[in-house]
Amino acid sequence: MKKIEHIGIAVKDIEKSNTLFKALFGEEHYKIEDVESEGVKTSFFKCGPNKIELLQATNEESPIAKFIEKKGEGMHHIAFAVDDIEAEIVRLTNEGFTMIHKQPKRGADNKLIAFLHPKSTNGVLIELCQDIKD
Amino acid sequence: MKKIEHIGIAVKDIEKSNTLFKALFGEEHYKIEDVESEGVKTSFFKCGPNKIELLQATNEESPIAKFIEKKGEGMHHIAFAVDDIEAEIVRLTNEGFTMIHKQPKRGADNKLIAFLHPKSTNGVLIELCQDIKD
Repeated sequence: MKKIEHIGIAVKDIEKSNTLFKALFGEEHYKIEDVESEGVKTSFFKCGPNKIELLQATNEESPIAKFIEKKGEGMHHIAFAVDDIEAEIVRLTNEGFTMIHKQPKRGADNKLIAFLHPKSTNGVLIELCQDIKD
Repeated sequence: MKKIEHIGIAVKDIEKSNTLFKALFGEEHYKIEDVESEGVKTSFFKCGPNKIELLQATNEESPIAKFIEKKGEGMHHIAFAVDDIEAEIVRLTNEGFTMIHKQPKRGADNKLIAFLHPKSTNGVLIELCQDIKD
């Protein structure tokens, strides 16, 4: 784990939240991206070496819609940057953690990603992410 | 806001969680600290330029005890590092954010801290923190 790559925040209205986080950081989001496979619309803010990812559901089946229904708006996951996501999946599985994704998949912001199940991590939804090299 | 200084995670049993996060990071916590004024016991893990702060309540009136009762274990707050906490409090107040602390107070890990009210920040509890210069 090299650093916190980003914190994902579940929001109901990404336009409103973009305005709010712009005021917080004194700077606009640098990217918006739709991830159709996940049913989410995202926007990204930079904060030094880290990022904040806002997530709005685009359909009722989206994990973000379910999260907000259950817990309300707020912090959804922590993503850690790793150099070798496949090696980390093996290491963490051997340590007894439960992977939601046993194989990395393509995520937003040009990353390979894999999530750990929060039941094995103190209720915290944790994402591993590795840059996709071009 | 220079970076994510740390993510605070509310836990029920800090000894168990220390073992879990050691397995996650492949490294021990580097510090434990009791913050009596807040009714919490904390431990800190390094992750590159960022930290993870585990928080366990030491009495029933602790904000962490109330948080876990309401939401369960999991992510509690995001702390952003700032150079000048007093200037940031003024700037954010002028932007319309509600400060829980209008004046910085002393927190764990040798910091001056101030919290923003989550009602004004999309349900996210945000902490500002500035290093105390010796």
